Amino acid sequence: MIALLSGGVGGSRLAAGLYDLVGERLVVIVNTADDEVIYGLYVSPDVDTVLYALSGIGDWERGWGIRGDTFRCNETIGRLGFENWFKIGDMDLAVNLLRTKMLREGMSLSEVTGELARRMGIRCRVIPMTDFWVETRVVTKEGTMSFQEYFVKRGTAPEVLEVRRVRSPDEAPAPGVVESLTSAQAIFFAPSNPILSVRPILETKGVEEAIRRSGAVKVAVSPIVGGRAMRGPADRLMVAFGYEPGVVGVAQFYEGLIDGLVIDRADEELAGTIRSRFGIEVLVTDTLMTSREAARWLAGEVLNFAVRLGGTRG
Amino acid sequence: MIALLSGGVGGSRLAAGLYDLVGERLVVIVNTADDEVIYGLYVSPDVDTVLYALSGIGDWERGWGIRGDTFRCNETIGRLGFENWFKIGDMDLAVNLLRTKMLREGMSLSEVTGELARRMGIRCRVIPMTDFWVETRVVTKEGTMSFQEYFVKRGTAPEVLEVRRVRSPDEAPAPGVVESLTSAQAIFFAPSNPILSVRPILETKGVEEAIRRSGAVKVAVSPIVGGRAMRGPADRLMVAFGYEPGVVGVAQFYEGLIDGLVIDRADEELAGTIRSRFGIEVLVTDTLMTSREAARWLAGEVLNFAVRLGGTRG
Repeated sequence: MIALLSGGVGGSRLAAGLYDLVGERLVVIVNTADDEVIYGLYVSPDVDTVLYALSGIGDWERGWGIRGDTFRCNETIGRLGFENWFKIGDMDLAVNLLRTKMLREGMSLSEVTGELARRMGIRCRVIPMTDFWVETRVVTKEGTMSFQEYFVKRGTAPEVLEVRRVRSPDEAPAPGVVESLTSAQAIFFAPSNPILSVRPILETKGVEEAIRRSGAVKVAVSPIVGGRAMRGPADRLMVAFGYEPGVVGVAQFYEGLIDGLVIDRADEELAGTIRSRFGIEVLVTDTLMTSREAARWLAGEVLNFAVRLGGTRG
Repeated sequence: MIALLSGGVGGSRLAAGLYDLVGERLVVIVNTADDEVIYGLYVSPDVDTVLYALSGIGDWERGWGIRGDTFRCNETIGRLGFENWFKIGDMDLAVNLLRTKMLREGMSLSEVTGELARRMGIRCRVIPMTDFWVETRVVTKEGTMSFQEYFVKRGTAPEVLEVRRVRSPDEAPAPGVVESLTSAQAIFFAPSNPILSVRPILETKGVEEAIRRSGAVKVAVSPIVGGRAMRGPADRLMVAFGYEPGVVGVAQFYEGLIDGLVIDRADEELAGTIRSRFGIEVLVTDTLMTSREAARWLAGEVLNFAVRLGGTRG
């Protein structure tokens, strides 16, 4: 079994690539710290991005939502004078309506996610990191705001001082999370934002410990290429949170947790530094997943790297 | 002030016609016994039909929903294998999402309706008959079902034995309903289904009494023309509930409550019977509201009839 810890865009792409290669042997554990209630609907952006990528209906280029979706509902909300900066497409709305309905009927988020995945024809498991609500507040120089306000409404423009998460003291990982991590042969960290997407998964009670204890080979794919985040504010946030710039900061973030780091050819000259400073094996390859084919190719590279590392170690 | 008691299609058309003539002097009191929770959304079909007709965005021909709307969300719900017989258009969804959200935030249905009307640029008052939930169960030869199941899913096909309404013992008319009826110069009953649309309004605690006490001229427009309901099962239901067929049954239904009944030229030969048997004045005219212009014309006829009746009476 292969476990992938995933955020949104980058994570969903690697998930799709891995799914094409290992099928139902894949388990995707998805960040839910970005979840929010929008227009009264329970929105789980990373979970949906993963579901859409796996089922092949996602908009690969845009990175979120459903390909060819329209925004008539969203536009109407705006026309009626309500805030509509969070864009949910009309087809996307169906998924969010159904999720909200099933949650209200008493199903857990992981049950709902499993049900949606099944109905989308996805054969591998997609598990939200937890069934508990995680509230993310972003403290910026321009005030404290919800995650989606910071990310979507403000387009990550405000300078971030702190990311606060309110998590239930009773919180537990969703059923299957710890079991998957424990029994996995490989655990992959997707090229997702370390601060905003990976850390919330690691902070889920018991998850980091399960990863540390697991006998799996652990490999991360850098979301930073040539010093820049592929998408979103990961590069700025890493520096703001005290990490060195670029892939070295990514290695710092994962230090002690991973066996290998996959970095892009653009960062080839830093491979040696990472190996010597952090004791992390490095694979230098093309990491840009501009298409599903490219994602499949990278997934193959990552899988082979993990096999090599497993062989070396074992 | 002019008060109109209204159901969906026919009521919304007469509401639009009256609105064009008397503007903000109109108050529309709308049936909510058809309200239902669909996909977790609070759907108020008659209220929306009235709002859409008044604001001019309604689909006049179809009689429900918004003109030019698409059904991408609805189609996606079906594609995911969920029931989607209740069709909410993508633009229509915006209204239902916002209503549900505002209700959850603690606003009453009448406050929400007022807010939506205002945002749609409607200058007259649109008031749901009550802010309390009314549950309608239709007992048919094929089993007991919800109103929308009977009306939309089954297309009113099953033979109706009984219509049961579960209403709160604490129920009261929405704010403004009794006041409008009391102070109105004229109270009109729209050409809506007497059993399914008008009766639930009359059954709202205090409403029928307010109408009886009101000094207003009271005029109903028959929803039945040439023995047939313009739309829906009114003709069959009236007979099933013991009324005589055709406009005579309509007069029977309103007996003691109205001063005048407006019937179509198709039923001209029954005018004398209605006058002599029920002591109700009759206006024979063209009642088919095939366009907003036709609705405006009928509204003018109804207003003039009410003025004449008022003059006679006073």
